[in-house]
Amino acid sequence: MSNPLFNKSLADIHHEITVARQECVHRGLNQTAKWLSELKYGIVQPLGGDSNIFPHIHIQNSGIDDADQNAYDLAKSYFDFREFDRCNFFLEKTTSPVPRFLYYYSSYMAKEKRRSDNLTDEANLTETSQLTDLNDVYTKLKTLHAQRKLDAYHLYLYGVLLKKLDLKELAIPILVESVTTAPMLWCSWLELAPLISKKEQLVSLNLPNHWMKSFFVAHTHIELFLNDEGLQLFEELKNAGFQKSTYITAQTAIAYHNKRSECFGASGRGRRRYSVL
Amino acid sequence: MSNPLFNKSLADIHHEITVARQECVHRGLNQTAKWLSELKYGIVQPLGGDSNIFPHIHIQNSGIDDADQNAYDLAKSYFDFREFDRCNFFLEKTTSPVPRFLYYYSSYMAKEKRRSDNLTDEANLTETSQLTDLNDVYTKLKTLHAQRKLDAYHLYLYGVLLKKLDLKELAIPILVESVTTAPMLWCSWLELAPLISKKEQLVSLNLPNHWMKSFFVAHTHIELFLNDEGLQLFEELKNAGFQKSTYITAQTAIAYHNKRSECFGASGRGRRRYSVL
Repeated sequence: MSNPLFNKSLADIHHEITVARQECVHRGLNQTAKWLSELKYGIVQPLGGDSNIFPHIHIQNSGIDDADQNAYDLAKSYFDFREFDRCNFFLEKTTSPVPRFLYYYSSYMAKEKRRSDNLTDEANLTETSQLTDLNDVYTKLKTLHAQRKLDAYHLYLYGVLLKKLDLKELAIPILVESVTTAPMLWCSWLELAPLISKKEQLVSLNLPNHWMKSFFVAHTHIELFLNDEGLQLFEELKNAGFQKSTYITAQTAIAYHNKRSECFGASGRGRRRYSVL
Repeated sequence: MSNPLFNKSLADIHHEITVARQECVHRGLNQTAKWLSELKYGIVQPLGGDSNIFPHIHIQNSGIDDADQNAYDLAKSYFDFREFDRCNFFLEKTTSPVPRFLYYYSSYMAKEKRRSDNLTDEANLTETSQLTDLNDVYTKLKTLHAQRKLDAYHLYLYGVLLKKLDLKELAIPILVESVTTAPMLWCSWLELAPLISKKEQLVSLNLPNHWMKSFFVAHTHIELFLNDEGLQLFEELKNAGFQKSTYITAQTAIAYHNKRSECFGASGRGRRRYSVL
């Protein structure tokens, strides 16, 4: 049975989340995997019952060539222990999409980890030195983008880098491209949300017509302090099948908190933003 | 072609490692997964070439029932972020083997994490309070063991608990039972090794006739400071196909270091032991 809000059955949505979660797990995108797991767990079939009645699907290990499998397995273990440099080293010669993403991602994470480790020593860290650090990954991804060789996950990373380097205007189309290619990639949506400063901008974006867009729009409304509209959108999402979603509960709480702050006269954009991820 | 030392072809060994690694990844046994990944990466086919020529095998997601899948996925995400209590909470009602293991393992990890977090405050932590902490998991596993309901992974955890509670003599048969059921479970072998205090004890143990035993015996020889014998055993393992294994290289280095200490007259069992895991 197709859901009116999503134009898709809950079983199909469940399937989509399962596949997307696995893709993120393979790529070390653990926050998104966690968000998707919570979303999946939060699905309740309309006729009662719990979220477990969907048939289990078998997911193929796609995106990792046989020739890369051993290096990838080893590198992923290092990644899980936050040994990013070592992870990066073993992926250098890989060619298939998943190890390639992990190659760039671990390079980025290694630099970020080093930066955060050195933070107390270098409190006066300049923008320029940060740029030098990340320049290497940035240049490679920029070249690949010009050759149209970036998939949705690489585009996400490219978008994150552009944001880090304060090239926010350039990041928007990149992140839109990422969610258009892989609408289930919540991390891209989440990076996009704070770049939108007013409702008109949100409406004018050329976003994919996918049910994840509803989550993004609701999320962005709360980010823009359009609390009542945000609350209504989340209420609709909840009723459409995500009754048990802790994410929706948290966003609803943030909206009510914002509304309460409004009563006490705090000014709109200046109030503290809460992040649940 | 069957390998004389292992009575198995390297392709079969590669397959065994791949399956075992996946089982460990699903159960959050990341150190063992990493060790197995390194071992897999270290395999070199006898006729030259690299380790990537083995065919990729497709691994079924065994040990997780459909009804437990969503709760397991969510709990595993929490586990990956070291949110052990939360992980434990969502697994309470699961029934299949993998989520059941993660249920007990997360409970143990939550207690260990709490203990380590409080360590500076409670430097005078007594044995008794530690016992109280772990008593809950211990009692449950003890009951299940009496009912013969523990699989190899549960037995590993039970063995670890027995060691923590200073019941080392009881831990030995439990860990031997664990490796007999699942010879690929390196963490069980590794917990067993320091419980062996002399060579006669090693010989008298009723261990499974599996190629992993060779790794254990070599490892234990180095632990017992029988460096020359250990070195010879590792040399044989290396020549049998594990040319690129970093673990073997590390163990070889430890043995040479021990030998060097011997020259300077440090006494046998009192010398510092190095752990690579």
